[in-house]
Amino acid sequence: MPKIVDHEERRQYIAEAAWRVILEHGMRGATVRNIAKEAGISLGALRHYFSTQEELLVFVMRLVHEKVMVRLSRILQADLPPKEKALQVLLELLPVDEQRRAEMEVWFSFTFHARYMAMGDGEKLNDGIQEGIVDLLRFLRQTNVLRPELDLELEAEKLYAIVNGLALHGLLEPDRLKPERVEQVMTQHLDSICVPT
Amino acid sequence: MPKIVDHEERRQYIAEAAWRVILEHGMRGATVRNIAKEAGISLGALRHYFSTQEELLVFVMRLVHEKVMVRLSRILQADLPPKEKALQVLLELLPVDEQRRAEMEVWFSFTFHARYMAMGDGEKLNDGIQEGIVDLLRFLRQTNVLRPELDLELEAEKLYAIVNGLALHGLLEPDRLKPERVEQVMTQHLDSICVPT
Repeated sequence: MPKIVDHEERRQYIAEAAWRVILEHGMRGATVRNIAKEAGISLGALRHYFSTQEELLVFVMRLVHEKVMVRLSRILQADLPPKEKALQVLLELLPVDEQRRAEMEVWFSFTFHARYMAMGDGEKLNDGIQEGIVDLLRFLRQTNVLRPELDLELEAEKLYAIVNGLALHGLLEPDRLKPERVEQVMTQHLDSICVPT
Repeated sequence: MPKIVDHEERRQYIAEAAWRVILEHGMRGATVRNIAKEAGISLGALRHYFSTQEELLVFVMRLVHEKVMVRLSRILQADLPPKEKALQVLLELLPVDEQRRAEMEVWFSFTFHARYMAMGDGEKLNDGIQEGIVDLLRFLRQTNVLRPELDLELEAEKLYAIVNGLALHGLLEPDRLKPERVEQVMTQHLDSICVPT
């Protein structure tokens, strides 16, 4: 079915163009007009591939998800001490550079739209961060790095809240909460839940 | 200027009606039609008082802000041990019951609209939570309840992230993150930063 494959490839290509626009101009600048221009197609052609903005947002969200996953699996395979590995994983989920800030913007918009706009259930995406953080703490426990007296499930809930809370504040208040500060909070928190080295 | 006062009173009345609709049906159910019906006015009359939905949202957000402030000042004046007082304050900012869940919904929508929609700068509201949390930790330090070795500013940044992270997760994943669990995480965190009693 060459035509269908071509259709999906074209959607992928447009989503990549949308991503470049978001990266450069933020979600505010990600108008259909700007996206069509970046992709080098007409507005009509864009609508042929994505009939609504929500549909395009879902596709871009998947793209972002894949990008994060690739980076995470690279870190997980690296030869690093457990606590350092955990810090690197957590920083991948925080807006500490332009790339990650743009990813966070897509996530925030997507989450809002998934909640309040007319998105189908198939379009709701579990980002897997909550489960990933539970796994991360299990890994720290198995490597005897997590303080033995701590309740793993409770610490995972708290860490998940810290990650998304910092992400939200870094996105909404970039002038107050700088990347270095985000990293400092994350490092101090990991130190507080890990055995002294 | 009786006419202007009347106009403001009328806006207040409509915002209260909008608030009741949000409380019962959530933001999804807060359509102009439902709000006009609850206020007992026509759609045309509603548009006379609030020409855009954003304008109404700003007004409802102010209403929510006042409600929270009234509850907070009541707690701050109460005769409670410092750590218990801090816990009660923090729980006022978390979706642990229907009232606070609805407030959080308004906050989330408002924050999204303030960021991405055409809102004037005058409509941007600082919710004061970040400053309030710094003050709360200063109070715990002054009463010798906060562990003396902790960096107050860093702990405030972390606590602020925990509060909004838990609020966001409680709102987005109510089936997974129950009010009791939110309270448990908050209690454990306060215990971890306070001197043992």
